[in-house]
Amino acid sequence: MSKTRLEAFSDGVIAILITILVLELKIPHVDTLEGLRPMLPVFACYVMSFVYLGIYWNNHHHLLHTVDHVNGRILWTNLHLLFWLSLIPFATAWMGENHFSPVPTAVYGGILWMAAVAFTVLVRTIVASQGARSTLRAALGRDRKGKISLVLYSVAIAATFFDHWISVGLYVLVAMIWFVPDSRIESRLKPLKE
Amino acid sequence: MSKTRLEAFSDGVIAILITILVLELKIPHVDTLEGLRPMLPVFACYVMSFVYLGIYWNNHHHLLHTVDHVNGRILWTNLHLLFWLSLIPFATAWMGENHFSPVPTAVYGGILWMAAVAFTVLVRTIVASQGARSTLRAALGRDRKGKISLVLYSVAIAATFFDHWISVGLYVLVAMIWFVPDSRIESRLKPLKE
Amino acid sequence: MSKTRLEAFSDGVIAILITILVLELKIPHVDTLEGLRPMLPVFACYVMSFVYLGIYWNNHHHLLHTVDHVNGRILWTNLHLLFWLSLIPFATAWMGENHFSPVPTAVYGGILWMAAVAFTVLVRTIVASQGARSTLRAALGRDRKGKISLVLYSVAIAATFFDHWISVGLYVLVAMIWFVPDSRIESRLKPLKE
Amino acid sequence: MSKTRLEAFSDGVIAILITILVLELKIPHVDTLEGLRPMLPVFACYVMSFVYLGIYWNNHHHLLHTVDHVNGRILWTNLHLLFWLSLIPFATAWMGENHFSPVPTAVYGGILWMAAVAFTVLVRTIVASQGARSTLRAALGRDRKGKISLVLYSVAIAATFFDHWISVGLYVLVAMIWFVPDSRIESRLKPLKE
Repeated sequence: MSKTRLEAFSDGVIAILITILVLELKIPHVDTLEGLRPMLPVFACYVMSFVYLGIYWNNHHHLLHTVDHVNGRILWTNLHLLFWLSLIPFATAWMGENHFSPVPTAVYGGILWMAAVAFTVLVRTIVASQGARSTLRAALGRDRKGKISLVLYSVAIAATFFDHWISVGLYVLVAMIWFVPDSRIESRLKPLKE
Repeated sequence: MSKTRLEAFSDGVIAILITILVLELKIPHVDTLEGLRPMLPVFACYVMSFVYLGIYWNNHHHLLHTVDHVNGRILWTNLHLLFWLSLIPFATAWMGENHFSPVPTAVYGGILWMAAVAFTVLVRTIVASQGARSTLRAALGRDRKGKISLVLYSVAIAATFFDHWISVGLYVLVAMIWFVPDSRIESRLKPLKE
Repeated sequence: MSKTRLEAFSDGVIAILITILVLELKIPHVDTLEGLRPMLPVFACYVMSFVYLGIYWNNHHHLLHTVDHVNGRILWTNLHLLFWLSLIPFATAWMGENHFSPVPTAVYGGILWMAAVAFTVLVRTIVASQGARSTLRAALGRDRKGKISLVLYSVAIAATFFDHWISVGLYVLVAMIWFVPDSRIESRLKPLKE
Repeated sequence: MSKTRLEAFSDGVIAILITILVLELKIPHVDTLEGLRPMLPVFACYVMSFVYLGIYWNNHHHLLHTVDHVNGRILWTNLHLLFWLSLIPFATAWMGENHFSPVPTAVYGGILWMAAVAFTVLVRTIVASQGARSTLRAALGRDRKGKISLVLYSVAIAATFFDHWISVGLYVLVAMIWFVPDSRIESRLKPLKE
């Protein structure tokens, strides 16, 4: 079975999610710059989620590059990833409208956490389908970036009960870990990143 | 005529439907976990419809795999299937907001029933277009899964007048029939499922 | 230049339009069958517009089949067609919410009229790009179906001032002309229809 | 790495943005032609943004035509362009609802300005990836059209404080510069335009 439709469907869903985000930017009631000011936290959330979805699309792109053969298990673990990504616009809007207050910020982190787990599950399903000679397994190494992300998300969710700005900072940090190329990790993850 | 655009268009429509579902998750008015509680039935409906659309995309994917040649009749029976699927977000939201009350739950079942019929019509149209040597016909066998689904949907719709939780249970059961692989049925339906 | 992206982009836009239609089906405030009754005209409009967009997608599919070479002029006449199609969800909702009252029904007809003109312009642009040996020109013949549609739309728009149900009947009639295969016209338009 | 998915994803996002625009056309509360009149500025904004997104899709189409090889840097500069384009529906609706009042008109111009910069950054990233023998660099020449656009946008943004109709006129002018073929510039930009 070819992977073309799997890619096309995933591209479609992520493209729609990234543009549904913008529907949460409600138009201000006044036509002044002051009207834009209360939108700033919503807009900041928008940028962060846009970058996160961009990172997922990017990594998904690289991940499927290593796949020759698609089976039912891969289709469903892929849908599972898309499910958690589909909740990002909801969590983004809730967090933005409440100006990063604790519970919505924790829920946002929880969804990122689940999406990261779903991505790992998808990776392992693909590795399992490729068997012992998996090129993906070799490329993945110890998957340090993935593990660090899960730890940072967990800390961020716990931190919402103390100071939710720490949480937001950690979400930004994880995005930067994936966004900014780190040469040592890069060389290990290269087939996934490049 | 190639089937590429038929696949691309169907992928597009199903991808949009699966993400339109998430637009029905209205943001809670308060920023506490209590604010999320009234969303639980809506969220449960969201998960169920996400899985249903995932199953349809999956089966559609497998179905078109057996097609070489697309004609006008296939294009229209495919659109007919997409029509009924397009009503799922509406029915999901109505059922979720009314906490699975009888009429919306019956309407949801009616739309699933029509979608199942539309899928069967599409399958038969493709079989007819392939003529006597249809590989799809052989693969389909007696289509037990399809027939059982229609019976269960009918029971579920009738049950809404007695206890609508039976109906919801039956919808979940049908989803599981298609989702969980059943080795005996699987071997018969294999080209459709795998 | 290849036509792949033109097809993909058009498929994307039409797929989104056909699913945006469903966003106009607002959820009833009560959970009874009576709650669905006032939705009937909106639903009828939804079905009609779904069929119209299906017909356009179908014909667009067939039309681009005859194209080898895409130029800037074709890209823009194609966008022009998509522009008029993009107004269909708006006109559908306006007509449905006002229960087919005269002005919205006339506006709906006006948009169908413009879409039909835009389709003709796209056809002629493609014929012109193919030069004297155009296979499309031969296939098109006198384009009776296209001309009849424009006449019927014009009558329908005028009829809204007398009895708007005549208009609605004519819109349904035009949809049927394109939907129901007519063997004589069919043979002339075959490459466009089949 | 192939560019197929990059094209498909960009097509998807731009197709969704161009159709999300139409969601801002709120249905009038009355069913008369007078009901449509207050929509005229919103509709005018809709047409302008539709044309702008059409131009970007068109140019993006031509730009990627010159690309053989996609790297991570191109993926991200492409997402950066899509980010600014994704803000167009928001700015369009804000400007339209406030009948082209100064601040929303300036914000609209600012987003067009950023999108133009993002397009230039994408072009340079692609040129850089192609090295000394870049066919795109030769085709681009001095990129007069791009530079003129940035100057005109800047003047338009400044002009909103004096007479915002000048600004709107300048936005229309820039759209026409890209839309109407100019033979001298055309020959230089040909691979980008045709």
